[in-house]
Amino acid sequence: MKIRAIVPVTTNELEAVALGPLSAAARPDTEISVTSLDTGPASLESRYEDAMAVPDLVEKVVQAEEDGLDAVISDCMGDTGVEAAREKVSIPVIGPAETSMHIAAMLGHKFSVVTVLDRLIPLVDQRAIRTGLTGKLASVRTVKIPVLELDGRDRLLNALVDESVKAVREDGAHVIILGCTDMAGVAKDLEERLKKHGISDVPVIDPTVLALKIAEALTDMGLSHSKRTYPAPPKKEILGY
Amino acid sequence: MKIRAIVPVTTNELEAVALGPLSAAARPDTEISVTSLDTGPASLESRYEDAMAVPDLVEKVVQAEEDGLDAVISDCMGDTGVEAAREKVSIPVIGPAETSMHIAAMLGHKFSVVTVLDRLIPLVDQRAIRTGLTGKLASVRTVKIPVLELDGRDRLLNALVDESVKAVREDGAHVIILGCTDMAGVAKDLEERLKKHGISDVPVIDPTVLALKIAEALTDMGLSHSKRTYPAPPKKEILGY
Amino acid sequence: MKIRAIVPVTTNELEAVALGPLSAAARPDTEISVTSLDTGPASLESRYEDAMAVPDLVEKVVQAEEDGLDAVISDCMGDTGVEAAREKVSIPVIGPAETSMHIAAMLGHKFSVVTVLDRLIPLVDQRAIRTGLTGKLASVRTVKIPVLELDGRDRLLNALVDESVKAVREDGAHVIILGCTDMAGVAKDLEERLKKHGISDVPVIDPTVLALKIAEALTDMGLSHSKRTYPAPPKKEILGY
Amino acid sequence: MKIRAIVPVTTNELEAVALGPLSAAARPDTEISVTSLDTGPASLESRYEDAMAVPDLVEKVVQAEEDGLDAVISDCMGDTGVEAAREKVSIPVIGPAETSMHIAAMLGHKFSVVTVLDRLIPLVDQRAIRTGLTGKLASVRTVKIPVLELDGRDRLLNALVDESVKAVREDGAHVIILGCTDMAGVAKDLEERLKKHGISDVPVIDPTVLALKIAEALTDMGLSHSKRTYPAPPKKEILGY
Amino acid sequence: MKIRAIVPVTTNELEAVALGPLSAAARPDTEISVTSLDTGPASLESRYEDAMAVPDLVEKVVQAEEDGLDAVISDCMGDTGVEAAREKVSIPVIGPAETSMHIAAMLGHKFSVVTVLDRLIPLVDQRAIRTGLTGKLASVRTVKIPVLELDGRDRLLNALVDESVKAVREDGAHVIILGCTDMAGVAKDLEERLKKHGISDVPVIDPTVLALKIAEALTDMGLSHSKRTYPAPPKKEILGY
Amino acid sequence: MKIRAIVPVTTNELEAVALGPLSAAARPDTEISVTSLDTGPASLESRYEDAMAVPDLVEKVVQAEEDGLDAVISDCMGDTGVEAAREKVSIPVIGPAETSMHIAAMLGHKFSVVTVLDRLIPLVDQRAIRTGLTGKLASVRTVKIPVLELDGRDRLLNALVDESVKAVREDGAHVIILGCTDMAGVAKDLEERLKKHGISDVPVIDPTVLALKIAEALTDMGLSHSKRTYPAPPKKEILGY
Repeated sequence: MKIRAIVPVTTNELEAVALGPLSAAARPDTEISVTSLDTGPASLESRYEDAMAVPDLVEKVVQAEEDGLDAVISDCMGDTGVEAAREKVSIPVIGPAETSMHIAAMLGHKFSVVTVLDRLIPLVDQRAIRTGLTGKLASVRTVKIPVLELDGRDRLLNALVDESVKAVREDGAHVIILGCTDMAGVAKDLEERLKKHGISDVPVIDPTVLALKIAEALTDMGLSHSKRTYPAPPKKEILGY
Repeated sequence: MKIRAIVPVTTNELEAVALGPLSAAARPDTEISVTSLDTGPASLESRYEDAMAVPDLVEKVVQAEEDGLDAVISDCMGDTGVEAAREKVSIPVIGPAETSMHIAAMLGHKFSVVTVLDRLIPLVDQRAIRTGLTGKLASVRTVKIPVLELDGRDRLLNALVDESVKAVREDGAHVIILGCTDMAGVAKDLEERLKKHGISDVPVIDPTVLALKIAEALTDMGLSHSKRTYPAPPKKEILGY
Repeated sequence: MKIRAIVPVTTNELEAVALGPLSAAARPDTEISVTSLDTGPASLESRYEDAMAVPDLVEKVVQAEEDGLDAVISDCMGDTGVEAAREKVSIPVIGPAETSMHIAAMLGHKFSVVTVLDRLIPLVDQRAIRTGLTGKLASVRTVKIPVLELDGRDRLLNALVDESVKAVREDGAHVIILGCTDMAGVAKDLEERLKKHGISDVPVIDPTVLALKIAEALTDMGLSHSKRTYPAPPKKEILGY
Repeated sequence: MKIRAIVPVTTNELEAVALGPLSAAARPDTEISVTSLDTGPASLESRYEDAMAVPDLVEKVVQAEEDGLDAVISDCMGDTGVEAAREKVSIPVIGPAETSMHIAAMLGHKFSVVTVLDRLIPLVDQRAIRTGLTGKLASVRTVKIPVLELDGRDRLLNALVDESVKAVREDGAHVIILGCTDMAGVAKDLEERLKKHGISDVPVIDPTVLALKIAEALTDMGLSHSKRTYPAPPKKEILGY
Repeated sequence: MKIRAIVPVTTNELEAVALGPLSAAARPDTEISVTSLDTGPASLESRYEDAMAVPDLVEKVVQAEEDGLDAVISDCMGDTGVEAAREKVSIPVIGPAETSMHIAAMLGHKFSVVTVLDRLIPLVDQRAIRTGLTGKLASVRTVKIPVLELDGRDRLLNALVDESVKAVREDGAHVIILGCTDMAGVAKDLEERLKKHGISDVPVIDPTVLALKIAEALTDMGLSHSKRTYPAPPKKEILGY
Repeated sequence: MKIRAIVPVTTNELEAVALGPLSAAARPDTEISVTSLDTGPASLESRYEDAMAVPDLVEKVVQAEEDGLDAVISDCMGDTGVEAAREKVSIPVIGPAETSMHIAAMLGHKFSVVTVLDRLIPLVDQRAIRTGLTGKLASVRTVKIPVLELDGRDRLLNALVDESVKAVREDGAHVIILGCTDMAGVAKDLEERLKKHGISDVPVIDPTVLALKIAEALTDMGLSHSKRTYPAPPKKEILGY
């Protein structure tokens, strides 16, 4: 099957950040492609930037369906534009945050999300409210590193370890969700580092990879989003697009 | 004070639909202006159209602050773009749906929203979830008339009466919220018609007018949205805008 | 329009505490009056005292409607007697606590209430439960000063600053609600003091003033509480009253 | 032990309505007394009447403690004044509505309350919200008979059967709570009548009797309400009382 | 009446731990018996052990009904097997955890449970979720002593005092529930010890004793679990039992 | 990878009912095995039968891990014994009900579960409460056919269509979950039949197949249940097992 991750930013270097872990995790019969946006922000760290990314994200999702893709991932923890895009296509449009929260809720008693900046805390809270899983959210913690500086893996891992240890010890987290898709690829390293701190019983979820595996699962089953929830928009001109 | 309603569609005939009730309801010292979008959809009946309206809505909000307006209303029951816009300005950005739900919850035990089309029911439900007021939402009902046909006031009023009576009698509503800002101006007519059906004890909320009155109240108090919740976005180029 | 604040205690010196901020905040065309009780407690710091204030509060509300007032405020953060009073009249009867919580929920992600004494914490919690807004309540904190000693403004402001800083930094509050109507008039001072502590992005709500502004807004719209929720009591003698 | 039911109305004929079932249900070593109010309304069918009953109810509770009673019941499904009274005494003050809801939630999946008048539906809903048991409340139904006409037992039982059958068949109730303490004594009759309608598996709770049995249980254990939740009110004069 | 506590473990020394407090608390006309299991674990400190105790617990409950008992208690804070057992009999089957949480919610604003081991925290949380009382649960704390070592009363009391003080001071608990039925008999000692720490206003609930008193109350009223919720299982062979 | 479904009943004919759809849905590299119990009930239609199935289910799960399986499914909509089993092993133990509810919540606004018998409605409700997804549960409906008669596929499909249509039209379901794993294999037939009733936009989830696909996804990622939530039980003898 063919699955495409759309990184909803114009920084196309981030395509490679996603492609590595996705290719490594894909089943042999899954063909992965990654694309990013032509119009929109360089990174997503606010509601405003998220909103400005949606029009092109939707277009890229429509293009993916036309290209014969089986499922797409909006590869950002804001689940950027997934609801709007689901109206325009019939293939599954996966949001990593929503997916991670549901699976984390199945895997353990409570989960914490470790994201980049304090300003995103309300957005993660809102995402949990929308899923209905607030009772399972132990905490939202932040590494206090902007998205475009996440490539310093040592700095990132150290901060992730610090915050994850606090999430487990102080907040009662039993599962950790990486809170930014640009942290892709560090989940297993983080699990290893946590073991050195005596925490060997807490799974770490990489949302991008999980989104891929759930996309594969839904495609295998011929399941997609309910068109009763996400009916096609009325036919109308959209001025300026 | 100066308050502007931005109708987040490109159908600029709808400016007049808003201007009448707003001018009638404004305080003597409130100067009302209404504008609509240059780019975006003709009407908002889907998540997709809502998303496509946001970029220009935000620009119009920023323009309003630069023009010295005291507060703005995103004049649509989707509260289109209010969260993104709040990040970009310091003046209050009022969403009629959110505002109506909070005030309705103060006025009576449970409220119903009567909106246009069945496809919008999940969106109204989501708005209630976001406010925390799901326990107060008696039902969401629909007149089954597309937005651009709402100008047939008799047809609209008849359908509103039918659905409001059912909301009160069958669903236990004690307050009715008009579910589309393009129903502006019919609240008092609906209250009168309900009295003829023996329902003289149920207030009807016109969300556009309520948004104006709350905008006036907040402006008087020098209150606006918390910038801790809605901090200014990082300085970054947005390609294509 | 004419709006009356009824301070539900017999300490009539507190009328002046309310009158200042209310007069300053009222629209030019709003005529403010303030009254207090003839029977009842000197201050409200318990459920018992609150209950003993209600009979006279209701009588004062009925009198206000007979006097041609457009709306009344029960000027206490216990929203003393508002539900009983709403049954007896048709004009809006505003509760400052309920109103502040709904508006705070619109202005920011989470709010804290800073009230006077620890013994009132469950009462504030209950008020939040009743509104449905528990998910938005970051914390209830206390200045540990009895109501009748609140006139020491320096001591009050220092304590308010201390607790508000903790509410923001430790509890995640994005909006502060003054938790006692006898703190009236210090909201802007508190905002200024918070700025000196590096917190310039958190609005502070003065519940008495907000109640006035919402009363004005509802009166302008001809909106009042649903008589379906608050129907007139059956005609019956009340022995002893 | 000595337990007193205080019927919070001035209709002292209702003392006998309570005394019969209470005496029949009391343990041999429990001495029952019933009293009613000197000041207040003839019956409780509104928030206003409830509020007007509280001052004398509290006085009667204080008197009961002084008289050496072990526990008191505020014998009305409004749980009239229980929170205010708990502050003034150390003995248990039992509310029949609250108690019935907690025990019903232990006995079955969902419960319905069948009360007297539609106007009381929001009050029962609020009581459920306060207990946290809204998820267990199948419905609130009404026999549409005023309190002071409840002595027509045939009319009452017929209406109770009709509404209870609907509560079970249509609303999914597995337990029925009698919604007015003046229905005291009909629980077992109602259970019998339901059996004739093929419903032999639904317990019916008589709140007055249950309140007595829980009062006995708490007294045996030396348990009462937490004084941390219900601390004694500050010493202050209450003008007019 | 005759009430039996079934300790759902094979350590029959624990029968005596239960019998003492139960006999002391029983009414003169209540005949207490205590039994334990023939097959199952020595103590219950995991979901697995709980599951392995259920088959024999159910058999013991069925035997109790055949023996003419009026009610049974599954004497463990896991409420071991109560739901399965209720299907097999018509007499009340009381779970101490569920019962304690409902009564604690009536007695105070929030309660904490102090149990034995950290691994049981999610199980107590789940029990609260099931009752609907999560909003009333201040915290779950642990003495970090395995069940079979609880007979060291000094060590136990010291740890209970430490954790209860923290529950009150840091978590806002107004009622304490002993979190393991093998702590039976220490409630009053703990209340005394808390007074020495200045906490004289917090009731402590002994779940085993409370279960007995509620069993007595329900039996007096002829109330038992709804057979609509707990219908008899279909007649079928169970291989191996 | 190797995945085993354990049908937690002793009716080993039901192994074949599961094996067909599982084999058809498995990835080429997934080796499916199905087993059933040696001790326990013939079918699961009550809490009692569920409890009696758990001991052997746990043993079969332990055996599966010893046999080198990668994941197991407890193939029943009661998620029989999954929590106890997770404590005993490190491989994922998947519950079809829990999994279906989480995925359904991702796919649409609200879901309904169509199960076999009315007596199971509270159990499905409880499962939803446990996941936190009650706000997404539109209804639980029943075909009123005992499990062991589900092999009459025409009768089953007709009843499923009737109830699913009502779930969509009357209850607002946007996704349907088959409520018994012995309905395995009819999801696509049901979707087709619904289209003939004009409902072409509602996905139908087969819980057994979904459990397999999620098991594959988790195994690929090296994810399993949090051992912090499900720590290994203490080492103790279990008498009689």
